[in-house]
Amino acid sequence: MKAIKDSVHDHVPVCDLAADLLDTPELQRLRHIKQLSTVRLVYPSANHTRFEHSLGVYHLAREACSLLGVEGDRALAVRAAALLHDVGHGPYGHQTEGIIERRLGRHHDEVGDLLTSGRLAAVLERHGLDPAEVAALVEGRGRLGQLVAGELDVDRMDYLVRDAHHTGVPYGTIDHSRLLAALQFRDDDLVLSAGNVQTAEGTLVARTLMNATVYRHHVSRIAGAMLERAGERLLDATDLLPEEFARMTDDRLLGALRDCEATADAARRLERRDLHKRAVWAKLDAVPRAVVTADRDDVRAFERDIASVADVPPESVLVDTPGEPSMPESSTRVVVDGEVRRLADESPLVEGLRAAGRSQWRLGVYAPEESLPEVEAAAERVLGLAT
Amino acid sequence: MKAIKDSVHDHVPVCDLAADLLDTPELQRLRHIKQLSTVRLVYPSANHTRFEHSLGVYHLAREACSLLGVEGDRALAVRAAALLHDVGHGPYGHQTEGIIERRLGRHHDEVGDLLTSGRLAAVLERHGLDPAEVAALVEGRGRLGQLVAGELDVDRMDYLVRDAHHTGVPYGTIDHSRLLAALQFRDDDLVLSAGNVQTAEGTLVARTLMNATVYRHHVSRIAGAMLERAGERLLDATDLLPEEFARMTDDRLLGALRDCEATADAARRLERRDLHKRAVWAKLDAVPRAVVTADRDDVRAFERDIASVADVPPESVLVDTPGEPSMPESSTRVVVDGEVRRLADESPLVEGLRAAGRSQWRLGVYAPEESLPEVEAAAERVLGLAT
Amino acid sequence: MKAIKDSVHDHVPVCDLAADLLDTPELQRLRHIKQLSTVRLVYPSANHTRFEHSLGVYHLAREACSLLGVEGDRALAVRAAALLHDVGHGPYGHQTEGIIERRLGRHHDEVGDLLTSGRLAAVLERHGLDPAEVAALVEGRGRLGQLVAGELDVDRMDYLVRDAHHTGVPYGTIDHSRLLAALQFRDDDLVLSAGNVQTAEGTLVARTLMNATVYRHHVSRIAGAMLERAGERLLDATDLLPEEFARMTDDRLLGALRDCEATADAARRLERRDLHKRAVWAKLDAVPRAVVTADRDDVRAFERDIASVADVPPESVLVDTPGEPSMPESSTRVVVDGEVRRLADESPLVEGLRAAGRSQWRLGVYAPEESLPEVEAAAERVLGLAT
Amino acid sequence: MKAIKDSVHDHVPVCDLAADLLDTPELQRLRHIKQLSTVRLVYPSANHTRFEHSLGVYHLAREACSLLGVEGDRALAVRAAALLHDVGHGPYGHQTEGIIERRLGRHHDEVGDLLTSGRLAAVLERHGLDPAEVAALVEGRGRLGQLVAGELDVDRMDYLVRDAHHTGVPYGTIDHSRLLAALQFRDDDLVLSAGNVQTAEGTLVARTLMNATVYRHHVSRIAGAMLERAGERLLDATDLLPEEFARMTDDRLLGALRDCEATADAARRLERRDLHKRAVWAKLDAVPRAVVTADRDDVRAFERDIASVADVPPESVLVDTPGEPSMPESSTRVVVDGEVRRLADESPLVEGLRAAGRSQWRLGVYAPEESLPEVEAAAERVLGLAT
Repeated sequence: MKAIKDSVHDHVPVCDLAADLLDTPELQRLRHIKQLSTVRLVYPSANHTRFEHSLGVYHLAREACSLLGVEGDRALAVRAAALLHDVGHGPYGHQTEGIIERRLGRHHDEVGDLLTSGRLAAVLERHGLDPAEVAALVEGRGRLGQLVAGELDVDRMDYLVRDAHHTGVPYGTIDHSRLLAALQFRDDDLVLSAGNVQTAEGTLVARTLMNATVYRHHVSRIAGAMLERAGERLLDATDLLPEEFARMTDDRLLGALRDCEATADAARRLERRDLHKRAVWAKLDAVPRAVVTADRDDVRAFERDIASVADVPPESVLVDTPGEPSMPESSTRVVVDGEVRRLADESPLVEGLRAAGRSQWRLGVYAPEESLPEVEAAAERVLGLAT
Repeated sequence: MKAIKDSVHDHVPVCDLAADLLDTPELQRLRHIKQLSTVRLVYPSANHTRFEHSLGVYHLAREACSLLGVEGDRALAVRAAALLHDVGHGPYGHQTEGIIERRLGRHHDEVGDLLTSGRLAAVLERHGLDPAEVAALVEGRGRLGQLVAGELDVDRMDYLVRDAHHTGVPYGTIDHSRLLAALQFRDDDLVLSAGNVQTAEGTLVARTLMNATVYRHHVSRIAGAMLERAGERLLDATDLLPEEFARMTDDRLLGALRDCEATADAARRLERRDLHKRAVWAKLDAVPRAVVTADRDDVRAFERDIASVADVPPESVLVDTPGEPSMPESSTRVVVDGEVRRLADESPLVEGLRAAGRSQWRLGVYAPEESLPEVEAAAERVLGLAT
Repeated sequence: MKAIKDSVHDHVPVCDLAADLLDTPELQRLRHIKQLSTVRLVYPSANHTRFEHSLGVYHLAREACSLLGVEGDRALAVRAAALLHDVGHGPYGHQTEGIIERRLGRHHDEVGDLLTSGRLAAVLERHGLDPAEVAALVEGRGRLGQLVAGELDVDRMDYLVRDAHHTGVPYGTIDHSRLLAALQFRDDDLVLSAGNVQTAEGTLVARTLMNATVYRHHVSRIAGAMLERAGERLLDATDLLPEEFARMTDDRLLGALRDCEATADAARRLERRDLHKRAVWAKLDAVPRAVVTADRDDVRAFERDIASVADVPPESVLVDTPGEPSMPESSTRVVVDGEVRRLADESPLVEGLRAAGRSQWRLGVYAPEESLPEVEAAAERVLGLAT
Repeated sequence: MKAIKDSVHDHVPVCDLAADLLDTPELQRLRHIKQLSTVRLVYPSANHTRFEHSLGVYHLAREACSLLGVEGDRALAVRAAALLHDVGHGPYGHQTEGIIERRLGRHHDEVGDLLTSGRLAAVLERHGLDPAEVAALVEGRGRLGQLVAGELDVDRMDYLVRDAHHTGVPYGTIDHSRLLAALQFRDDDLVLSAGNVQTAEGTLVARTLMNATVYRHHVSRIAGAMLERAGERLLDATDLLPEEFARMTDDRLLGALRDCEATADAARRLERRDLHKRAVWAKLDAVPRAVVTADRDDVRAFERDIASVADVPPESVLVDTPGEPSMPESSTRVVVDGEVRRLADESPLVEGLRAAGRSQWRLGVYAPEESLPEVEAAAERVLGLAT
């Protein structure tokens, strides 16, 4: 069997199906999409891509199937779904997710269109698989779908460890080999076997600490907000189709932003790391509920109002709301004393992590350095922030 | 400068004072005391010693002094204290702590006697240091003592990372380089600089998860309890002086246990990992408060009573109470918004970790496999456990 | 002091000068140039950039100066040179070196122009440094220049370890901390102190094994040759100035190749990893000396002749000659028995490594898969290869 | 399946047979024998044991069988042999090998007696295995025996990586996952598949560099020589049977040395790292051939003569000859151009490594610090060393 060397999992054996899928332009494209998009502006080593991550998820899926006794075509389908789980991502991954959802009405894991026609479908069918079934697994549907997208999926196991390896921040280093070995099915639910409350807690803790120090670092959030606004303006100012936008790579989007007058300044700033700064960085309890739950149109209205009050150009104010704090992993199920229980009911740590998540929550308002004082004052008034 | 290769910190430069101290029998003795004593019976790679740990603590102390601008003789004294901080440990470290405290009335960090006379004093004085001052630092006294023994000491930074490296359990992998860089003095308090709430949380989390999976693993606790009882019996049955006992190495103690009739069986069992098993493993809320807070004499009385009710030899029942759950690191001080605050007041995670610590707490009653049912029934009755 | 997290060196403290230099567009540009250019097509995790490498080299330079007792402005200049040592690189680093040398007549480490005017000069002068002196250090001139560019430079120490970390191939994992500690000046020569023959051998071995498995992997060489030819064609077919070309990033070059008709196909192939294959892969002793030492024009003539004989389009044949095998590190000087000696004179391993390098040498002729047989036959005839 | 956490291979699944074998006193004994015996006196982190190493070898054997398609009882036998391959070692491993061979006439891998009667035989038979067949595998006999003891055995793959991990010396970090994947049988020979000349070279290089920096470090050799002589004296001075000696652990031997008058001083010196020093450290070409090839009795005669000439007590002179340099791995077979070839015939590096091995070779003569000058002069005369 062919093998590919990976910096995290070392030697990844690659089956024929995977080798064929890896050769498609759809998967090769993921070489050009960074796993952590703008985080590299804070952690300069974090240049890993969704390609190597996909390979890692494939590898863990193979191990999980083997440990769970899932074999034959069902295992093949799970491996294919693991390898393909990110092909629906737009350029800069999560940073353009909102744009794509608003303009195309689909989430990045809705890959039915991509998988059921064209080259990927042809490869899957040649290996005896039903593309629609693989697409369903990517969306987390069905019993085995839980392995690909769920609280205990192999996606998370790979990205936490990989992000830790590449940023140099150790918090993500979960015990993924133990996690894999602890997976079991109880009826149709994927759960952790007895004795693994701490294994589950460890994963939750890793997510919470990585959120605070890596995924939601303010510099990455500022760059992400700048990129997202520039993406919107690009679509508004040119005849680029949303479908084309969604299929770009990081580089192609940056190139397009450079070439468009309305976004050239943003492109230059992103390329040179000459970013906006924080005018506001407010905690959850200082922010009115209506602002926390604001939708896209509300946010835009806030930005316009703040710019108007501050008397600065409208495009120079960015309001960045992470939405309500949540923690999906808290519903992980663990076997305790022979029964399946929700981790949140079993571990008092979950409540602490939830509270930590809320205390780490921040609303950001960003602006060029020279207009920070005006924007800060205006934002506090317009948004009604407690001070 | 001489250097020693370390599996955790790689290249550890060694100053002349340290080189001279390392050559003393007192420090060489630490080569023969395992850092995690009986944990190696669960994690077979955990054979690291207090010698290499001491070297690591010395290394971090050197870096901390350098980052904090502590120089000259004061830095030299801190480095000496770091290197010497474990010379007061008895064989098998924490497992014989209770014996030594009861028989000699001193804690392992009370190293005044050891440091202020004999070879160690001679070396310290030759390098211009006052042995009494170094002993005070080992006990955590004074401003700089906080670096050696306190919530933010370099001891903890070394052992968490080292224990993770050697057990293979990743949870202890704290961000010790960031922690070091974040240290600062505010007045006379050692605190973490602004922006380091997560750094402090990360350390607490590491401790909590390492407690559950490594430090308090039941197999290690059973072996530890067997060892401790055997140590007591050895002192009772022979004319070995407590002072001699306290200066033994792991091997010498095991040899002495083998050679004494009253303890030969325990020695054989420890050597072959043929251990007692859990008759009881009870949660905090199932255990009467009087049992949780029981002192040594109470525990012995419980053991005798259980053995009598179960009709088994008295030495075959071991009651193991970890005492009240505590979490000293929660008082770590962090700068937030320009003020020094206690981590417990700032981080909602601390409360969750405290609760997790309580939920991990277990009372153990151990016995040979063949008498488990009788001992279980007897222990529930004698100790008044909720079932 | 500010610090940046690095996946290899962990916590890299950053002085004010470095912080100011890092903010310049010249250094930010290195975020967009991959350290190993086309190697990522073989080792998908190898996405690290010259930015993080430069930071690593800066870090090691700081440590080397500190260990060697180099202080004040001289140390500052060395650190600046270390951080800036790669700003002269064109897009895709070594892959476009030839183009830039031929068209601009300068090597990538000739950074005089870049450093002595404009923003970099301004920053250096503001910190009291002479830009011309820093440029001389980058070129390896002078006593301290040996630390930046020489057989024992910190550049090599960083890249071997970093490339190993990111490819997952362990051979590059040299003992860089020991190497650093072993550096010393003898008169004006940078040498390794006594007892370090193996330390030097280890570095040579690492280079030799990394060459064979990573740096000169055939897939990377094929992609590199395709990229180099496309770069030439781009400059021939458009009015892009060589100066502009030399200042591009990886992405900008790939974008330009996509936008130019003469290179669009190459761009698509590189992006999708749909590469040429080997028609010839010949050992040193099968290749006539005239071919081994062929210059650029000769190679082009070979390509045209082969294409003509094979009756395929001229641009579809690539001849790739690595030039004469060499091993600059063999002149590393080591103190043995109190005298400075050349490693090659001291270590019999050097001759073996030199021979291994020669046996790993390959001449490549590449072509699209469909024309491999014709090209192979034509190449053997035109080049006069022994078969 | 049960699993054990290992610091090198992380999660090691353990089959029922292995679990039963691990519970025997014969395997538990290996917890008390250090893998690198006296090397820990140079590299203080090198406290790993033959127990964890055996577990690692078992793990790699399982993977190798799976990759090679070896299944059923044959795979079970290989795994058993891998786990048991070190049970024949005496205390301090290789350091007492000579004593055991001379007194008992058997090599440490002759484990027939140990395996074919008693507890180990019972466990093996209970799992349907023939103990004699497992013993043959441990000795490297038969086709599958090559996996357990041969140039490409899993023993070497584990110890190089493990020793690197625990000493902190990176040279041993071979690419063991690639090595495993490259194994194949050609007729009845275990060889490396095509494209793996560098994989084989990497292993040889690792051995050569680890020899020089770790395995044959002079401090370890001095301590080893002291231990070996003390072992001989112990057997001569007491009624300890060689059979008993061979079954001791490190601790028990050290205890016995302490308790015997003739060896108490050596024990104290070893425990406190208060070792002899080098009076002579001579290269191969300075040593007469008769000394290089001297047997045990010759060496003893040399020691007595040197002591007599130097007028020091006979037991204070130790002559330490490593025997003729050799490199068994050079006969590793690799597939090149479809044919099986010996690595030494294919790789010019082998000759360089052989020469490096010869240039690293040293004859040592050791003595207490105070008598070094006399012993040096006497040794040069008695041994006829070139100076």
